[in-house]
Formats: sequence, structure tokens, C-alpha cells
Amino acid sequence: MPTDSVDRLRREVCALHDELVRWGLVTWTSGNISARVPGTDLIVIKPSGVLYDDLTPESMVVTDLHGTVVDGAYAPSSDTAAHAYVYREMPEVGGVVHTHSPYATAWAARGEAIPCAITAMADEFGAEIPVGPFALIGGDDIGKGIVATLTGHRSPAVLMRSHGVFTIGRDARSAVKAAVMCEDVARTVHLARVHGPVEPLAPEHVDALYHRYQNVYGQRAADDTTEGAGS
Amino acid sequence: MPTDSVDRLRREVCALHDELVRWGLVTWTSGNISARVPGTDLIVIKPSGVLYDDLTPESMVVTDLHGTVVDGAYAPSSDTAAHAYVYREMPEVGGVVHTHSPYATAWAARGEAIPCAITAMADEFGAEIPVGPFALIGGDDIGKGIVATLTGHRSPAVLMRSHGVFTIGRDARSAVKAAVMCEDVARTVHLARVHGPVEPLAPEHVDALYHRYQNVYGQRAADDTTEGAGS
Amino acid sequence: MPTDSVDRLRREVCALHDELVRWGLVTWTSGNISARVPGTDLIVIKPSGVLYDDLTPESMVVTDLHGTVVDGAYAPSSDTAAHAYVYREMPEVGGVVHTHSPYATAWAARGEAIPCAITAMADEFGAEIPVGPFALIGGDDIGKGIVATLTGHRSPAVLMRSHGVFTIGRDARSAVKAAVMCEDVARTVHLARVHGPVEPLAPEHVDALYHRYQNVYGQRAADDTTEGAGS
Amino acid sequence: MPTDSVDRLRREVCALHDELVRWGLVTWTSGNISARVPGTDLIVIKPSGVLYDDLTPESMVVTDLHGTVVDGAYAPSSDTAAHAYVYREMPEVGGVVHTHSPYATAWAARGEAIPCAITAMADEFGAEIPVGPFALIGGDDIGKGIVATLTGHRSPAVLMRSHGVFTIGRDARSAVKAAVMCEDVARTVHLARVHGPVEPLAPEHVDALYHRYQNVYGQRAADDTTEGAGS
Repeated sequence: MPTDSVDRLRREVCALHDELVRWGLVTWTSGNISARVPGTDLIVIKPSGVLYDDLTPESMVVTDLHGTVVDGAYAPSSDTAAHAYVYREMPEVGGVVHTHSPYATAWAARGEAIPCAITAMADEFGAEIPVGPFALIGGDDIGKGIVATLTGHRSPAVLMRSHGVFTIGRDARSAVKAAVMCEDVARTVHLARVHGPVEPLAPEHVDALYHRYQNVYGQRAADDTTEGAGS
Repeated sequence: MPTDSVDRLRREVCALHDELVRWGLVTWTSGNISARVPGTDLIVIKPSGVLYDDLTPESMVVTDLHGTVVDGAYAPSSDTAAHAYVYREMPEVGGVVHTHSPYATAWAARGEAIPCAITAMADEFGAEIPVGPFALIGGDDIGKGIVATLTGHRSPAVLMRSHGVFTIGRDARSAVKAAVMCEDVARTVHLARVHGPVEPLAPEHVDALYHRYQNVYGQRAADDTTEGAGS
Repeated sequence: MPTDSVDRLRREVCALHDELVRWGLVTWTSGNISARVPGTDLIVIKPSGVLYDDLTPESMVVTDLHGTVVDGAYAPSSDTAAHAYVYREMPEVGGVVHTHSPYATAWAARGEAIPCAITAMADEFGAEIPVGPFALIGGDDIGKGIVATLTGHRSPAVLMRSHGVFTIGRDARSAVKAAVMCEDVARTVHLARVHGPVEPLAPEHVDALYHRYQNVYGQRAADDTTEGAGS
Repeated sequence: MPTDSVDRLRREVCALHDELVRWGLVTWTSGNISARVPGTDLIVIKPSGVLYDDLTPESMVVTDLHGTVVDGAYAPSSDTAAHAYVYREMPEVGGVVHTHSPYATAWAARGEAIPCAITAMADEFGAEIPVGPFALIGGDDIGKGIVATLTGHRSPAVLMRSHGVFTIGRDARSAVKAAVMCEDVARTVHLARVHGPVEPLAPEHVDALYHRYQNVYGQRAADDTTEGAGS
């Protein structure tokens, strides 16, 4: 186990949970974040059922890609099997986030994809945010549904039917950003439709916005402290 | 009076009121928490009409199971009779919470049960969240309505008609968690239905989720700092 | 000018503005509080257009009951004429609050009274929250509309048509509580009606709840730190 | 480059971003503020994709009126071209703000102007808040749409179709206030219409309110710490 990488990711994954709280994505203990340890078959993930205020880097759990605990005093998140499946099947993924954020989960409860109707959504998701199948917790079904839905899709977020949101990213921070923006656009499009129909953007506009945002936005080169979202 | 237990519960019940504020369940002084003193016929409850910022462990009130003050300088919550009735009739209950949290109270105002339509709701409530009768404050009527509705029901939460939420738990913390999750699912299902019908989960899925959550989630054994909610 | 009373009220009125911010009733500088100096024809009121973060006891303005500045370096709130009219015509009033809190102002924009449909509303308001006439700022018209609507009405809150909320109380703190609870019930009843009709409570239930709350709730005797709202 | 003015504006523009966060107008990095350096063809603007917590006066970017960086270590906001176009074409403008605030962006997603239906809106905007055309980021199109829509219009805010809000002001603080109030009225009118039609104010009332607010509200003379919004 590469101790330095694991220690860094324990701190990073722990700290990123504060963003779930800050942006209103979680209630009580209802969301979790994981990160792949680069170059290994290990992940760092939230312990199950621990309150966000009580999280420490040391309480994070290290598991293999089948969810077996390799290091840590706590049981890992009850969603570990879904995270692990994604890492097994999508080698480009370095971070996974799961929430029940309210507006996005409302779309999931209806089983309705969020249409790509605003430019911020085209920037980050490049498409509608799709719906994945209903699946019970406890085996590989949720993971399979995530991978089947997101493979070949631009969107880093999937609305798992009657359940909530899973997002992926090249690292945990990117997946957290996708979860935050998913709730933001879920809310805006929800509100917009209350008073009338909302047209999706034209596909060529979505393409233009997505390519620009992924390639031009933010600080170039070795600046790791910046990231996108329309600013 | 077992002084150590009472002192511990004064601190715990006082501190838990912060969670009602943090999760947006209360306005001004509109919610209260109580706990049974284990092995006794006593409860510890919020004083009536004291602002959350002004609560101290010493200001908590100790009453018997008929709401008569046994210890404390303040009058107990005006809802004490309802709490006390629940403790008298439901010996397994160690904590009771009452709020007027907005989304849940909106369902209560219509007198409509919240259908069990998302997995987080199946986890925590194992069923719809039921509606109890309209009852006036001041006697045993509210308590009777709570007990009649929750007896034999999986849900630890009841929507008292045109009034608000009461939740029960094995201790005060469990009842607080139920109140927090009740508002969370009340909001998500409310939002979901704004744009179309929402199907309840299949009963066998509700059963599977409920049993797993109650038995597998969180940290096992002597770890009291963890608790459930989908993480 | 009774210096001690004025100094105390400058501190109290200044501090109470924090409650408007805390409960989400105000945006930028859009709400104000005043108090009558007991036994005088003077009031203490917020200065016009000063940000809440910048308010100090010294910045509060003392005016007579026609809004003429008696003491203070700033111009008084642009709503001073409305406050002053209320104090002139309603001698029992010791505090006035004005906000554009969002849910209550939404009812005001439609010109629709909030039906008394939940017990917390019966407790505090004892009736529907009525609508007052549309009136332009700058003279006595707003004050006249408030007084005409609230005279003989149990409700300490009025929804001024297409404008916002005014509340009254025996002192500034009571008027602030009424403004906080007005927004709370405006939100709950708004949410309730989204998914179906909401029946008002029976008049005899409203009466019973109102009389009990006004006479039984909270701490009796010389305890000034407690107040009502369903706890 | 007038160093004192630029340094002052770096601090001011940096600090004003806290108001976007405080009033809930931005998510992750999704909004930006700029100011014109008085008497020059320079502006100070947020760096692209930097988190609000990480902003410092030093990280602000100085560009000319074509968006070319004159001073600063970071790339400027990806919206710089739109800001710069506004400053080129509207010499009276000293500040520009861009957000995707949720309620206002919901109106923008439908392409519907916000009717002037409440007095706070007449005060600040003096008219409906208009919709500007859909335009892609990356050239002058957004800037042209803003200028074409706001020229000769009282409103300092425009809802850019399927995108979000741009506001202008005599300085950055005024533009921030317009962005804050735009979201506030977008929310209130949205909520009002949920339960029935909302009539716009009569034009003569809008005129009277607007003229009074722009000329009477707040502290006169050399008091720069005060500003309007109905207090």
C-alpha cells in the first residue's frame, strides 16, 4: 500500500465531504465520496453511518476493488460495492460520489432525465443527465446500472431510479463538482418548468458549449486549484 | 432520581436541539425533544418557549410520565402531555421529537400520507409515513393519536393532521434522526410530484431495503457514534 | 428624552435585525424594525439603506410620531411614516416590523389572505392573515391601510397588497416573532396547496388554540426570556 | 495603470464575491464580478474557475476593454468578453455582475420576462426584468445581447435566454445589489404565480415608486456605506 498516496487521499476525501454539506446535498449521513489510489487496486471511502462532523482522515476506510477492507477501523460505506464496481469497470474514473440531493432525487423518483436546457448544464454535462435502472443495494446491481448508463455518455452524473445521484470524475474533486452542479441544474430546470415548458438547447449549441468548457475554461497548465462552472 | 443519568440526558437533550436548528426543522421555538430516563418513570424535556440559543442543560425540565415537574426551574414544553402519553403507552420508546418542519407539515395540512417512493424512505421508515388524527393540545388526545397511529407501524414518524410531526426512537438521538429524515423525504417526494406522478416502491423492495438497513447499515458492536441514512 | 430607555431600545432594535437575517426574511437592506419608547411620543427605528452588518445601536434613529428626526446622525427608514402612523393610531402597539419575506410576499402579490389551516397559525395569529390595500409609500396611506386592516383583528400581521408584510406587537420582539412566524406559516400553507386543497381549521378549534396559546404557553411570571411558538 | 485605483478595486471586487455566496446566487464557481478602473480603459475581474474561498485581491485580473490581460497571474473569467463589451458600449457602467442564480435562471430558461408585480421590483428595476437573446460564449454575442436589451431600459438586470443573469451598475457594488434583488424578486414572483395569476403594477405606480426610490431612498450626501432596497 503506497502510504503517502493513501494518507493524502484520506485527508482529501475527508475534506471533500464538507462540500456535500456546504452545498446542501446531504442530510444526516446520506452521501459518500471515494477516490481511487492511483496506480493501485485500492480505494479510500467514507465509513458507514459516521456523521460528517465526526469524520477524520483516520476514519476513512481503504478497501480493494471488491469492497474488502484493507485498512481502517470502521466498516466502509454501505454503498462501497457500487463504488468498487465502477472503479473495476471504468479504469479512467478516479473518484465517485453518491448523494440523495433533493432536486436531483426528485427527478430520479419520477424516473425522468433532466433535459439539457441551460448553458451551465451543457458546459458541465454536455447532454441530458440520464436515468439509470432501479436496483437494490447489496450486490453489483447498482454498480452495473451506473456503468451501463454512463459508458459512452458525456454526463458524469446518473440519476438512479427512485434512489439518488452517482457521479464520476477523473478524481474525487471532479466527481464532487459534478454532484454539486447536478443538484444546481436539477433545481433550475425544475423551477423553470413550474411555469411553462422548457425547450432543450439545440444539439449543436450543446456540443459547442461542452467542447469549449472542457477545453478552455479555468486556468491552464499546472494550476490545480481552479476548476470550471461558468465563471 | 438517578442523578448521573439525568445529568447526562440534560446535556444530550439540550445538545440535540441544535440538530433541529441545523437541519431547518424549527422556527423560533417551534419544536421540542424529550428522552426517557432509563429504568425510571421520568423524562427530560425542553422548557416551554425558551429560544434555542438560550437552552442550557440546567434549563431542561424533568417530569414524571404524567407531565408533572419533578425537577427544574422552568415550565416544561406545552407538548409535554403528548410526549408523556407516548412514554406511558410505548415502553420501548426512549426518545420523542416534535416539529412543524415545513414540507412534512405541508403533507399534514392536507392530511396525506407520504408514499414510500424512494429508497432512503424505505431504509428509514419501511413504509409510508402515516397521518394521525386532528387533536387539540392540552390533554391526552395528541398522545393517543400518535400511539394509535404508530403502534404496529414500522414508521417512527407520524404526521399529525393540520399540526406537524412526532417521531419516536429507542433514544432521543434516534427520534431526532427520524425527524430529520422525515423532512428530507417529505421534501423530495413533494418536489418529485410537482412534475408528474410518483410511483411507490414495490412492497417487496421496501421490505428488502428496510430489513437490510435496520440490520446491516452503520458500524456494528459497541460503536455508538454512528448511525444510518444511506451513507 | 429618557436617555436610559432610548439607549436600551437602540441596542434592542439593532440586535433584533439579526433575527430578520437569521430567519431569511430580508434581502440586502429590505426590512426594518422599530420600537416605541415607553411613555413617550418617540420611536427608535432603523436608518435608511444601511446594511445589516453595519448596523450599530448608535446608528438607530429616534423620531417623533410624525417621523421627524429627534436624535441620530442618519436619515430614518423610508418606511418611517408607516411605522409612525401605526404608533399614533394604536396606542397598545410597542413594536412594528416590515419585511418582504418571500412566501408571505407571494401571498401579498396575489392579494390573497393566508387561511388559518395549521395549528401553529391558530396559536400565533388566531385567524387568517389578512390582506391590506395597495398603497404608495411616502405619506400616511400605508399606515392607514395597516391600521384599518389590523384594528379588531387577532392577527398581528398584515399582507400589504403587492408589497410585503407589516407586523405589530406589544414590543419589538413580539413584532419580530410575528414576522418570523408569518413567513413560516406562509411557506407551509403555500407548500401544502401545491398538491391539493387545504381546509381551514374549524373556527371553534382556532378559538381554542388561540386562547390557550396566548394564556398558557411559555414561562409565566417574571420570565422575559421565553416566548411562544409551539414548543 | 493607476496603481492605487487598481489595488482598491482588486480588494473591492474580491470582497464583493462574498455577497454572491451569502445570498445564494452562485454554485461552485458559477458567477463573476468586474469593475471599471475609473478614467481608464481597464477593468478588474475574477480569475477563471477559482473557488470563492480561494479568491484574493492579488488573484483578480486586470484586462483592457477587449479582455486582453494587462496585469495578473491568472486567466480572466471566461465571461470577460461579455463584460468588456458592456464597458466598451456603455460608458456610464462601472460594474458588471454575472450569475446563474436559480430562480432568475428559471425565468431565463423559459425565456420569460419577470413582470413588475411587487413594489420592491418597481423600486429597484422600474420595469419588468427583460429577456435577452440566446448567445454563445466566446465572442461579442453575449455582450451585444446585453447592451441591446438594456440600452434605454430602466432595469439594470437582463435574463440572457437559457443562460443566466447579467447586471450593470454605476459601480460593482450597485451591480451586485441588482443581482441580489433580481434573484429576490424572481423568487417572490415565481412563488406568487404558483397559486394564481399575478397582476403587474399599474405603470403610473411603477413610475412613482421608481422615481422615489432612485431619488429619496438611503442616506444622502457623502455617505457611501448605505444603499437601497426597501428599508
